[in-house]
Amino acid sequence: MSNYIAIDIGGTQIRAGLYPPDGLIPITLERTPTRHPSSTPLERLINLIASIWPADNEIACIGAAAPGPIDPRSGIIHEAPNMQGWINMPLRKHLEDRFHVPVALGNDANLAAMGEWRYGAGKGHHDLVYLTVSTGIGGGIIIDDQLMVGANGLAAELGHVTVLPGGPMCGCGLRGHLEAVASGPAMAHWAEQELQRGVISSLLPGPGLTAKAISSAASAGDSLAIAVLARSGTFIGRAIADYLHIFNPSIVIIGGGVSQAGSLLMDPMRIAMQENVLSPHYTENLILTTAALGDEAGLMGALALARSRSLETKTSPSIAN
Amino acid sequence: MSNYIAIDIGGTQIRAGLYPPDGLIPITLERTPTRHPSSTPLERLINLIASIWPADNEIACIGAAAPGPIDPRSGIIHEAPNMQGWINMPLRKHLEDRFHVPVALGNDANLAAMGEWRYGAGKGHHDLVYLTVSTGIGGGIIIDDQLMVGANGLAAELGHVTVLPGGPMCGCGLRGHLEAVASGPAMAHWAEQELQRGVISSLLPGPGLTAKAISSAASAGDSLAIAVLARSGTFIGRAIADYLHIFNPSIVIIGGGVSQAGSLLMDPMRIAMQENVLSPHYTENLILTTAALGDEAGLMGALALARSRSLETKTSPSIAN
Repeated sequence: MSNYIAIDIGGTQIRAGLYPPDGLIPITLERTPTRHPSSTPLERLINLIASIWPADNEIACIGAAAPGPIDPRSGIIHEAPNMQGWINMPLRKHLEDRFHVPVALGNDANLAAMGEWRYGAGKGHHDLVYLTVSTGIGGGIIIDDQLMVGANGLAAELGHVTVLPGGPMCGCGLRGHLEAVASGPAMAHWAEQELQRGVISSLLPGPGLTAKAISSAASAGDSLAIAVLARSGTFIGRAIADYLHIFNPSIVIIGGGVSQAGSLLMDPMRIAMQENVLSPHYTENLILTTAALGDEAGLMGALALARSRSLETKTSPSIAN
Repeated sequence: MSNYIAIDIGGTQIRAGLYPPDGLIPITLERTPTRHPSSTPLERLINLIASIWPADNEIACIGAAAPGPIDPRSGIIHEAPNMQGWINMPLRKHLEDRFHVPVALGNDANLAAMGEWRYGAGKGHHDLVYLTVSTGIGGGIIIDDQLMVGANGLAAELGHVTVLPGGPMCGCGLRGHLEAVASGPAMAHWAEQELQRGVISSLLPGPGLTAKAISSAASAGDSLAIAVLARSGTFIGRAIADYLHIFNPSIVIIGGGVSQAGSLLMDPMRIAMQENVLSPHYTENLILTTAALGDEAGLMGALALARSRSLETKTSPSIAN
């Protein structure tokens, strides 16, 4: 039986694992810094794959999670943030030309959703909403056991919906998006404003004021830090209520660094969700939980994608083209 | 070849058509008032179907569009507005027990989306957002050639997302939903408020102040009526921008009575959508248009559902159970 290669291309490192047909334990797992003076990110990626390539050449499919908007049908990365020159980059073609096996690509947040669905907190569910809350807010959607990608692979930008019209500027240049009020930097920004207003807190203004610092201070009982987490959780909970009406999932999974803040974030989120839901039918058997795979979600999603794509290829040989 | 029966159960009338395997021209099409002292809505529905039943008994499938939240998997109507006693009503079982053929159910807005996708403005598209704007605002979503129904059939309530936090009360009891600011009654309500403020207009306050009256006055150049349509269009356009980020469709179709207001509604909608979209990739090849099937959309969707379900039943006989 053939093996699989899963890749996670991140802003700071690229990871590549060689996996057996089943199970999550890699035969080999290697990593390399994404940026290095010696070579381009694409060269580094290709060298990393070559370094774990099996001697018997038996690879059924390579699955890759990459940042930024991607068209999974064409295999083109529209624009990868922090990856110089990766604009309309035909990554699938590069890898297929070099390795002569089918390659499947996906956006990192979408594939994190797929990872949680196949191997993590969402196992057994058919309709899943995944939100990752860290520097930005991204998402991934499983509908009826299918990853939702949209007409050009740009779907599930769940952080870029307006929750506070006219509100703070978002990283994307529009105002009042969920990301602009509830991401890690948005939390730090609001805490900074409150400190400037004279609110008493153990938090210190400046570059050390991060979501992680806020989370630690909240755990130690700092009331401003607790309020910051509650505010972020409340905005996310309201957005989740909208997502229940839109998708009617059986599970909502919160991933990303900020989700590690625990109940001080999740409890206000749950309350806001309940307060803003249309009918109890939406929450009756709903699970709202944190992600199970942590930083592995993207890599596990790439593995799930490779394994599912290889199944499709067997029944319909044209899909790999 | 077997024929199909399509049904549209509305608040005022029930329609049922007998259709050939292909094409949209019914062999027979009958209607009956939904409510009448002589019998219950279910009895009237069953009699209507019996009245068009073919002599050769050759029906492959019955498809039915019904109001309110429905679980298409179980065939149960959770709660149909204006239909006394239709709470957790096992409509599919009633019809299958009586007619001994497979029955497929769907929510009317979802099936209108399916009708427009198969036979109307959305033909040939794989990813479609349909919004119906009339007394309420409902929706239907096609993702990768599949109707999105969610875990319990409650998905695509596209009018019940918060667009104005703390805004006007919605029919559902929550505040600031799209339906509460942009539906026909919301338009009438805002016009009434403006008249009370002393704004000069040809519109008259009172029960005659409907979306239709506003639309007529706007066409005749009334500036308040024009502003009312622009306000509604702007709210809908902002919500569509969010739906582009969420679904990345290739077409957005606006149906329902209010959509007949034409460019005075659609132009502000298009402008607001463009102003609130994250990246030009979402609108590059996007079509924003009005529905093609009018009041027939639900019936055509029921027909499309029956025909697609019957295909599934052939390949997998267990689905009809």
